[in-house]
Amino acid sequence: MSADQRFDELARRLGYSFDGDIKIGGNYTPLVVDGDVAYVSGQVPRVGDTLVVTGRAGADVPLEQAQLAAKVCALRALALLRRQFGSLERVRRILRITVFVQCTDAFTLHSEVADGASAVLFEVLGEAGRHTRTSVGVFQLPKNASVELDLIASAKV
Amino acid sequence: MSADQRFDELARRLGYSFDGDIKIGGNYTPLVVDGDVAYVSGQVPRVGDTLVVTGRAGADVPLEQAQLAAKVCALRALALLRRQFGSLERVRRILRITVFVQCTDAFTLHSEVADGASAVLFEVLGEAGRHTRTSVGVFQLPKNASVELDLIASAKV
Amino acid sequence: MSADQRFDELARRLGYSFDGDIKIGGNYTPLVVDGDVAYVSGQVPRVGDTLVVTGRAGADVPLEQAQLAAKVCALRALALLRRQFGSLERVRRILRITVFVQCTDAFTLHSEVADGASAVLFEVLGEAGRHTRTSVGVFQLPKNASVELDLIASAKV
Repeated sequence: MSADQRFDELARRLGYSFDGDIKIGGNYTPLVVDGDVAYVSGQVPRVGDTLVVTGRAGADVPLEQAQLAAKVCALRALALLRRQFGSLERVRRILRITVFVQCTDAFTLHSEVADGASAVLFEVLGEAGRHTRTSVGVFQLPKNASVELDLIASAKV
Repeated sequence: MSADQRFDELARRLGYSFDGDIKIGGNYTPLVVDGDVAYVSGQVPRVGDTLVVTGRAGADVPLEQAQLAAKVCALRALALLRRQFGSLERVRRILRITVFVQCTDAFTLHSEVADGASAVLFEVLGEAGRHTRTSVGVFQLPKNASVELDLIASAKV
Repeated sequence: MSADQRFDELARRLGYSFDGDIKIGGNYTPLVVDGDVAYVSGQVPRVGDTLVVTGRAGADVPLEQAQLAAKVCALRALALLRRQFGSLERVRRILRITVFVQCTDAFTLHSEVADGASAVLFEVLGEAGRHTRTSVGVFQLPKNASVELDLIASAKV
C-alpha cells in the first residue's frame, strides 16, 4: 500500500473525510515550502466545518478523546502535505511536531495524548513518519480545541 | 513603496519607533541566521523600555489591545530582520510565526489576536509576508506581556 | 578544553550523569537530522529515570530550582547532539530553543528561568551556543515537569 492509500484507509476507519477541508487563509496560509522544507500551520481537530473534539483534557475530555483530537490534527497536517506535493510518497521525513494540549492544572499525560498523532504519522508514512516531538499543556486553544498541532517536514524535490 | 517605507509608515501610524530598540542579549541573541534561514527570538510588545500591552486577554485586556500587542511583536521581529539584512526587501518569505497569548481559561480568540501580527506582515511584505501560523493560549508570559511572537524567515542571500 | 570536556565538567559539577540516558522512542525519536539541521525533541529535566525538578514555578518550585531544571533540559539536549554527531565540536550553532515553564498565573520570570539553559549552552559551546530563544509560561507539562525545552541546531557536516 502507498502512503496515500494508508492515509485514506486510516481516515475511513476513523470515519472522517479530509477532502476539500483546507480553507484558504487570509494573511496566513496552511503551508509554506522553503527549498525542500515544508512548514504546516497549527491544526485543530476540525473536519469540514466542525471541531470534533473541544474542551479540557483531564476535565470534560477523557484521554481517549484527546488522543482522537491529536489524530485528527495529524491527519489534517498530512492532508495539507498531500495536497501540496500531490502524494504523501513525496514526504521524505517529518522533522518536528509540536502538540499543544488544552488541559487542567493537574493533567500530565500530554505525551500520551501526542502519541495519537505520532501513531498516525508512523502508520501512514512508516520510517519517514518518525519525528521529533514537543508536547505541552496550555491554558486555552483557538475555538476551545482540545489539541493543536503544527509540523515541519522535508520533501523529496 | 518599498517594504522599508511600508514598515516606517505603519510604525508611524501606530505611534511607535523601533529605532535603537533591540537590546543585545547575554547568552542568547535576538536573531540567528543559518544559510538563508533567519530565526528570530520570542518578541514581547516592547517599544524602547516599555511593554505597551500587559495582562490577560479575556480579563483586563480587550481583544483590540491584544491585537495591538501582536502588531507590536510583529513590528519588532521585522525591525530585527531589517537590521540584520539592511532592508526588508531582502526578506524572501516569512515561513512560520508562533503567537502565544496570555489569556483566561475561557478566551478562545487566539486566532483573532494573531490576525494583528499577520496583517502587519502582509501589509509590510506583501506576498513574502504570507506565512504559516500557530496561535495558542498560555498561562503567563515574560514580564506579564499579553502576547509573545517568534518567527522564522528566509532571506535572499 | 573541548566542548565535550566542558560538557562533562558541567554535568559533573551539577552531580548528574547523562550516560545511557536517552531512551529510544516508539513512534517518535529524540533527534532528527535534515541536511545539516538537527531537531531535538522536547526535553524534560530527567536524569536516568528520575525527573529532578517537578512542580510549578512561583508556587512549590523556587526560581533557582526552575533554573536548575532548565539547565538539565539543556544538558540532555546537548547529550543527544553529542551522541548523534560523536562530538559537540561538530555543533556549528544552536539556532533556536523554546523553553516552556510550568508556572502560576502570576509568575513572570520565564526569561530568568530560561537563562539557566542559555548559560549551559554558552558555557559548553561558546559562540556556537548563542541562540535565539522563546520562553513562555504554560499550564502543565508532561509528568509534572517544571520545564520543557526543545532545540534546533546546525552541524558541521
